[in-house]
Amino acid sequence: MAVALAPLALSMGEPSGIGPDLILRLFSQRAELRLPPFVVYGNVPFLRARAARLGIEVAFGTPDADFATTLPVLDIDGMVPDNPGAPTALSGKVVMEAIARAVADTLRGATRGLVTAPIHKGVLYSAGFKYPGHTEYLAALCATPGNAPRLPVMMLAHEELRTIPLTIHVPLHEVPGLVTTDLILKTTRIVAHDLRNRFGIAEPRIGIAGLNPHAGEGGTIGRQEVDIIGPAVAALVHEGIAAEGPFPADTLFFPAHWRQYDAVIAMYHDQALIPIKTVAFDEAVNVTLGLPIVRTSPDHGTAFDLAGSGKGSHASFLAAIRLADKMTGGA
Amino acid sequence: MAVALAPLALSMGEPSGIGPDLILRLFSQRAELRLPPFVVYGNVPFLRARAARLGIEVAFGTPDADFATTLPVLDIDGMVPDNPGAPTALSGKVVMEAIARAVADTLRGATRGLVTAPIHKGVLYSAGFKYPGHTEYLAALCATPGNAPRLPVMMLAHEELRTIPLTIHVPLHEVPGLVTTDLILKTTRIVAHDLRNRFGIAEPRIGIAGLNPHAGEGGTIGRQEVDIIGPAVAALVHEGIAAEGPFPADTLFFPAHWRQYDAVIAMYHDQALIPIKTVAFDEAVNVTLGLPIVRTSPDHGTAFDLAGSGKGSHASFLAAIRLADKMTGGA
Repeated sequence: MAVALAPLALSMGEPSGIGPDLILRLFSQRAELRLPPFVVYGNVPFLRARAARLGIEVAFGTPDADFATTLPVLDIDGMVPDNPGAPTALSGKVVMEAIARAVADTLRGATRGLVTAPIHKGVLYSAGFKYPGHTEYLAALCATPGNAPRLPVMMLAHEELRTIPLTIHVPLHEVPGLVTTDLILKTTRIVAHDLRNRFGIAEPRIGIAGLNPHAGEGGTIGRQEVDIIGPAVAALVHEGIAAEGPFPADTLFFPAHWRQYDAVIAMYHDQALIPIKTVAFDEAVNVTLGLPIVRTSPDHGTAFDLAGSGKGSHASFLAAIRLADKMTGGA
Repeated sequence: MAVALAPLALSMGEPSGIGPDLILRLFSQRAELRLPPFVVYGNVPFLRARAARLGIEVAFGTPDADFATTLPVLDIDGMVPDNPGAPTALSGKVVMEAIARAVADTLRGATRGLVTAPIHKGVLYSAGFKYPGHTEYLAALCATPGNAPRLPVMMLAHEELRTIPLTIHVPLHEVPGLVTTDLILKTTRIVAHDLRNRFGIAEPRIGIAGLNPHAGEGGTIGRQEVDIIGPAVAALVHEGIAAEGPFPADTLFFPAHWRQYDAVIAMYHDQALIPIKTVAFDEAVNVTLGLPIVRTSPDHGTAFDLAGSGKGSHASFLAAIRLADKMTGGA
């Protein structure tokens, strides 16, 4: 007989955004979508108001409620107004605590993986948030004794293609200075480790993009490939990681080429995000590697213009749930 | 009765590369592919030797030969050894003269458009070539009195998507400094003009990408969108060009978004090339806009490793012929 798996944890995210809408809609379709049980970390009175606004009938229960009939919620007490599109610092405490409780429960195994709804950093800063972003907050929450997190690494994942931006939300002119052999080594080791342990790929193959057009054409259009990326790839191969590159980014993202790799490491945001959006449409999932827990999230923001309207695609949120499920022993 | 169209001109390109192979192969399949007549600008003894090596039976004739039975060639006298994969400066004079004669004939209307096979700049430099690349050479050849070329602009074209890199073969660290309002204005005007005149699009819509992640997020991840690209878009709209942007490059290359535009202007090489390669596989065509003649070329290089072997895809070369045909009144 199969052992019952723990539920997934879903953090509610920014209440004035689209995250709660998508969670409520997906719960209401749990049977036809065959969703794995999850517990929402959020505020029940707010969720009840939002469900009423959307015309979705939902029974709310405690975390041990029967998912077949009732939405299990770990209720976080606080003031959370139901004002779609109008974020307020009032709800910041609940947003942050929801994430913290979800991480704590996932670390101790009460939930088996975490799917986070989008937050809005600007609002959280007024409520005392102290991190550059969602991911860094998660990394800090995971840094318990014995679980010191490595570098958190962002992966965009889709059935067809997985890409990792080496540098993320920095102006393009800062990118060349941030591409170092050390960062490539640390990032690729985490990617290789998590592809083995979280994705069940015994011998992951990793393609690495160049920084410059044509991967620098042997040093004539930029030196980073010769001086930095090439030596990193050689060092990785020496450690037994099946890394290859640096390849010109345009031909690497030619499908016949990237299909040879289990993941592709790009040097900067758009180099990783353009191909995944082109290939995956709205079904790409944001996965954080390098944490002691599994964490996925939809690849979109709070979409204030759509919050409370019942509109907006749940494709990426659904894909995030399915991937977290699959990465933690689900079907 | 339909007036007969002039033939297309095909320049032979680097003889130790794959260009001549693809031209000979495509000619041998002219009937089943229903190719429009073309004249090859190259060296007959060399082409005869390459055809024999490839086992392709071809009758060679003068430029007025009947395309149904004979390959029309404008023979350029010179020393052109048939050594696949082994470029030599010996053949440089013929390579350059073939291009010059093809441009001259196209300018005077003896041929109606030019398709260029790939050249190898390194070899040509030893033979006296003085230009940064193929396109700049063409622009110089077109700069006859009354035909002074505007800025040559590179477009990657496919039925689904057309992209234009604003900056091309420069190291990534130089890109931010080269993105100027003036260059965006000049480039977009040429793109709009040629979409009208060469592609028959009466009211072209042009999407313009940002430079930084998330198009700078209102100035917090880089200033170019606010200071340079946004003002350029506003000025273009003021002139009556339907330009929109700057958009985050990742969501701009989400297919539902770029399908709204007749062309998309990217800020740098990989930002334009990654999506077109992802979408068009090996069927993208390089089109030079801003010249007084139509010029297309396959979107690949000399492929020395495949030259003389009979291997290698002719998909892009075929697409380049078809597009030049279509842009100059063909079916």
